[in-house]
Amino acid sequence: MFKKVLIANRGEVATRIIRACKELGIKTVAIYSEADVNSLHVKKADESYLIHGDPIKAYLNYYRIVDIAKRAGADAIHPGYGFLSERADFARYARKHGVEFIGPDAKHLEMFGSKIEAKKLMKELGVPVAEGSEEPIENLSEAKKIAEKIGYPVMIKAAHGGGGRGLRVARNEKELENQFTIAVKEAEAAFGKGEVFIEKYIENPRHIEIQILADKHGNVVHLGERDCSLQRRHQKVLEIAPSPVLTKRQRERLGRICVEAAKAIGYYGAGTWEFLMDKYGNFYFMEVNPRLQVEHTITEEITGIDIVQEQIRIAAGMGLSFSQKNVNIYGFAMQFRINAEDPTRDFVPCPGTITAYYSPGGIGVRIDGVVYKGYKIPPYYDSMVAKLIVWGRNWDETIRRSRRALGEFVIRGVPTTIPFFKKILNDPEFVKGQFDTSFIDRKIKDFTFIKETDPEVLALAISAAIAAHHGL
Amino acid sequence: MFKKVLIANRGEVATRIIRACKELGIKTVAIYSEADVNSLHVKKADESYLIHGDPIKAYLNYYRIVDIAKRAGADAIHPGYGFLSERADFARYARKHGVEFIGPDAKHLEMFGSKIEAKKLMKELGVPVAEGSEEPIENLSEAKKIAEKIGYPVMIKAAHGGGGRGLRVARNEKELENQFTIAVKEAEAAFGKGEVFIEKYIENPRHIEIQILADKHGNVVHLGERDCSLQRRHQKVLEIAPSPVLTKRQRERLGRICVEAAKAIGYYGAGTWEFLMDKYGNFYFMEVNPRLQVEHTITEEITGIDIVQEQIRIAAGMGLSFSQKNVNIYGFAMQFRINAEDPTRDFVPCPGTITAYYSPGGIGVRIDGVVYKGYKIPPYYDSMVAKLIVWGRNWDETIRRSRRALGEFVIRGVPTTIPFFKKILNDPEFVKGQFDTSFIDRKIKDFTFIKETDPEVLALAISAAIAAHHGL
Repeated sequence: MFKKVLIANRGEVATRIIRACKELGIKTVAIYSEADVNSLHVKKADESYLIHGDPIKAYLNYYRIVDIAKRAGADAIHPGYGFLSERADFARYARKHGVEFIGPDAKHLEMFGSKIEAKKLMKELGVPVAEGSEEPIENLSEAKKIAEKIGYPVMIKAAHGGGGRGLRVARNEKELENQFTIAVKEAEAAFGKGEVFIEKYIENPRHIEIQILADKHGNVVHLGERDCSLQRRHQKVLEIAPSPVLTKRQRERLGRICVEAAKAIGYYGAGTWEFLMDKYGNFYFMEVNPRLQVEHTITEEITGIDIVQEQIRIAAGMGLSFSQKNVNIYGFAMQFRINAEDPTRDFVPCPGTITAYYSPGGIGVRIDGVVYKGYKIPPYYDSMVAKLIVWGRNWDETIRRSRRALGEFVIRGVPTTIPFFKKILNDPEFVKGQFDTSFIDRKIKDFTFIKETDPEVLALAISAAIAAHHGL
Repeated sequence: MFKKVLIANRGEVATRIIRACKELGIKTVAIYSEADVNSLHVKKADESYLIHGDPIKAYLNYYRIVDIAKRAGADAIHPGYGFLSERADFARYARKHGVEFIGPDAKHLEMFGSKIEAKKLMKELGVPVAEGSEEPIENLSEAKKIAEKIGYPVMIKAAHGGGGRGLRVARNEKELENQFTIAVKEAEAAFGKGEVFIEKYIENPRHIEIQILADKHGNVVHLGERDCSLQRRHQKVLEIAPSPVLTKRQRERLGRICVEAAKAIGYYGAGTWEFLMDKYGNFYFMEVNPRLQVEHTITEEITGIDIVQEQIRIAAGMGLSFSQKNVNIYGFAMQFRINAEDPTRDFVPCPGTITAYYSPGGIGVRIDGVVYKGYKIPPYYDSMVAKLIVWGRNWDETIRRSRRALGEFVIRGVPTTIPFFKKILNDPEFVKGQFDTSFIDRKIKDFTFIKETDPEVLALAISAAIAAHHGL
């Protein structure tokens, strides 16, 4: 096992990794930018090193990071998610310099970096994919031929794009003519290359992803699925495990397909196979995320397995601490991304100073948070202040407990997404488990956010009044 | 289901009950003493009523409490633990006035109020008990006769005592002669009645207790056991579920015995059957606690069942939300009672003001806490500031996670039992699961508590220095 691990990340995920290391008896090294001097990850690590200069580049400067790791005597680096986590060049550089990269082989990072290549490979391995062009195309007649073959509606995707940019839908030949030209131009402007591909468009799908863990000894398991259909503009906001609509049979079948695919390519580490599911229960491969995901927590809650500890064990050459038959899914878990964003102003990020912070507790409530009263959220990074993770024995209990936990959560000084989640939890369709990737964008116009009467502030005021009255 | 529940308690357990009510969609009414104006339970409830006068009597004044319940429109009262929770007269009074008492029948509260009666009854029902006198005795010759019959060592217990007071051990006839006279005199002084009873003394036992839940329709289940052997002067300090030494067979057998006993007497509500276990694996009934226990949390963690919600359902006449076959025990859980006590000064309670408070989080960590930065702990009540509950898949993971969580827990302004628990978690016998009720009193003299270097304070100082250096 490693003696010391450097965490090449910040904030919440850095803290998550430090916790895993501490439980494994591994010393931790944090890095931090000048903007992150007061971040809790800096305080929680055994040692911390400041990287001067640009607050983003501090976490991308991998020559410097590997140099710090070597000088601090760290034998491995955990990249978390975002930043360097999917960079094959970083993985190679670190390993070449004798510091293990906690993640997959660099060739797999490369493989999954290209979506069209990943899709081709997965199709070969028997993973279900949406019909469409197998190679990037640039002319309309080819596009029309493919669209006719697979049938409308189709989606036009930039071959080198990502994150929902450059996506266009065509419902008939006329629309394809219009959209294709726009899509190519957009792709050229955004990614420098006009190549696109055509794919069957899946209407109002659910986003279902399978969590894979694989060690270096050929043991590959899946931990069931997460339902990440609740997205705002292609960004996940609330994740659920397991999906309230998947059957055990579907879960096992899809899980087995991903396990076989991971085995076939000799994959190791944590990885997520993302799919769209149509209303008939068909799955279509989207991409593989060859790293820890923000929403890994809910899989931990329903299985009891610490995914970050398994990642570290794998990187150290150890076997998984469990086998497929030990994976039992119990109950439901939801993760709420509590962001410092203003739901009344189109979710604009609102960095600022936290003036009050009381997190919920009690049964079924997990907080992965890194802010505290007096903490100043820097404007340079994502706006997440905490992850609230709620577990319940069943769907209904999980919803009721989530409402309770969100009701207890007090954050002052910045607006947050808490009122937004309260709305979702009271939506009748959501409560019935009826939602797809269009749910939030469709519902959001009906959500009205009013300045809430703050029970905490009220109670404090009442207490103060009582105390004053009785001269306490 | 009830519309509104009054919580006749304070602090941590009041908050616990409020959480259960909120998840069930029930409105809550808090009561509070003048000393508890700033207690979180007051703020978390939907309405709160001050009871003037003595800070203890405020929570015992049941005429006043039932009156408040009726005027606030509460249809039930949850007594929590301590205070009025085992008072048959209160249960009767509340029910007579149309407010349901969330707990067992008054006759069962009475039944279990007398330890000697409870023991006689349980023996009749086939629950294993320690041999001894069946009736209170007052003269030495009778004591000698019984001691000879059951064999030394024997224990002399005050018939009307409790909480470890009036307990004496005699290892031979000579010791019995001395101890008997002292025990009778002590019992007279302490409880007004000199009656004692003689029982086989169990050497270095483990304290094992079975959690029972029974509804009013004859459904009785057990949720396995808790191992509460870690006690300081007969007070539980760290509870574990399941016991690291019980076999599945022992658990099922003992559980079934308690279920049958509860069924035989028509018991309903939550209840705990407490036993001593000798080194040969024999069990000896001690007493029944006909109420919620402080350590119920660890049973919740390993079963997923919300015991407080079940109590409320039962009182409302509903059936249990699960049956015995749905009870699956998964992993281990430990509860650490974080008390404001000074381990360097014989655990003297230290009420005072909390000047810093950062609770741990992340996977497997539950906090049932009620203090916050700036909160002033009143001197009138018990010294508990939070319960830290840690879950892990197995014994080893639970210990490693507990160390990590305790390491993260920062409370300033008052000394706490955190350093004490860190010592226990690093004791080689404890780590091997080898402990009995003598463990802490035996070990404690070897624990040295030094003023810890506070990583939080250090880190803050370092951060401040860095910030200053770079002029941030």
